[in-house]
Amino acid sequence: MKIDVIPYASAIRSDLIKNRNVVVIDVLRASSVMVTALANGAKAFIPVRTVEEANQKALECAGEEILLCGERDTKIIDGFHLGNSPQSYTREKVEGKTLILTTSNGTQALNRLQDAKEIFIGSFLNMNALVNRFLELDNAVLVCSGTNNNFSMDDAMCAALFMEEVMRHKNVTLSDFSITLLKAFQKDKGNLEILLKDCYHLNLLKRNGFGEDVAYCLQKSTLNIVPQMKKDRILCTENP
Amino acid sequence: MKIDVIPYASAIRSDLIKNRNVVVIDVLRASSVMVTALANGAKAFIPVRTVEEANQKALECAGEEILLCGERDTKIIDGFHLGNSPQSYTREKVEGKTLILTTSNGTQALNRLQDAKEIFIGSFLNMNALVNRFLELDNAVLVCSGTNNNFSMDDAMCAALFMEEVMRHKNVTLSDFSITLLKAFQKDKGNLEILLKDCYHLNLLKRNGFGEDVAYCLQKSTLNIVPQMKKDRILCTENP
Repeated sequence: MKIDVIPYASAIRSDLIKNRNVVVIDVLRASSVMVTALANGAKAFIPVRTVEEANQKALECAGEEILLCGERDTKIIDGFHLGNSPQSYTREKVEGKTLILTTSNGTQALNRLQDAKEIFIGSFLNMNALVNRFLELDNAVLVCSGTNNNFSMDDAMCAALFMEEVMRHKNVTLSDFSITLLKAFQKDKGNLEILLKDCYHLNLLKRNGFGEDVAYCLQKSTLNIVPQMKKDRILCTENP
Repeated sequence: MKIDVIPYASAIRSDLIKNRNVVVIDVLRASSVMVTALANGAKAFIPVRTVEEANQKALECAGEEILLCGERDTKIIDGFHLGNSPQSYTREKVEGKTLILTTSNGTQALNRLQDAKEIFIGSFLNMNALVNRFLELDNAVLVCSGTNNNFSMDDAMCAALFMEEVMRHKNVTLSDFSITLLKAFQKDKGNLEILLKDCYHLNLLKRNGFGEDVAYCLQKSTLNIVPQMKKDRILCTENP
């Protein structure tokens, strides 16, 4: 099995993802939000780029129960129902609802993947389920969403954990970038808080009062689902 | 001092390099070729993108002793004087001459750096000299040239060595990507052959009969020069 890693959203090129099985990783926090909400019974996410697009999409979804979700500069968008804190996506709030989501980084990546074969959502929270899903597949491209068009270590170390777990079960061909991430992951992989202690985005969230979100997002394999993109929607094909 | 790293040539963006001191790293082998030839008395390198441009430039340099140098698919270009094996750039062959160079990766990076403040050439061979030069400067952007538009581990580990050496002398602010490379570099940094044993480009060179080149390029700090780009030429401002 071949595994490649794309370092950040703006580095996505068609030749890297064409007909391949892509995993979009935005640990802090879009991936973690989607996995959490879908595990709590949300019907689907519709990722959009802008606030205007979110409002427009809401009008088009007449007949569905809609929530507007997302952040800019780590904070909830004015007039939206939910921000980017995964723990606020409780069953009480999201069950049966369609969630229109726009975030600074994670949803930007999703909009550049038209040529992919399948698109899955990855995070630490659903790692086991994700790895199990890929044991049946013969290739993977892990897209680290990154922060503001740059590389973000939290996404990259999540990609490294994925590779390490898959390699326990099957032979994997790694790119130079994958090898480098795996080497970086080795020393402190037992403690993600230590491994990621100097990560820019993680520290920005902590400074902005989202320390609980960070701790939540760094939990491994607490949710047993693999969200998948189908047309313009991300949803859970199995029952959680 | 702030140090950033750009993972491969096509990821160079103007906002990342504008008014910054850039080091172009193409360990295997363009950087190593340039450092070696300039240490052996070559007058200057003129990096160009294509074979046609190389021939055109040679015509424009009437009055100078010219050598046409470069590779495609790791091999010397038909009709050129020298390929991309640093050891073939002996004093006997290059002293006093102007070398027009086109390579698959290293010279491609050089052509995307118009907005940089200063541009230097980095390799394992001239590491000490390079680090000493940057002790006087207050920022650095390390451009890993990469291979075929992708990340190459040899360049990245050379960037990591640079950061580690600079950090011995002064405080450094690191990006997420720099931190990740430093972590990857830690375990086997004492033995570059082991650290880079799975590197794609290194193994491609070995398979094509360039094992001696690889061993040569992985030597640390054997040459005491820091080539620098001035207008369209790379040259050595101090005497070797």
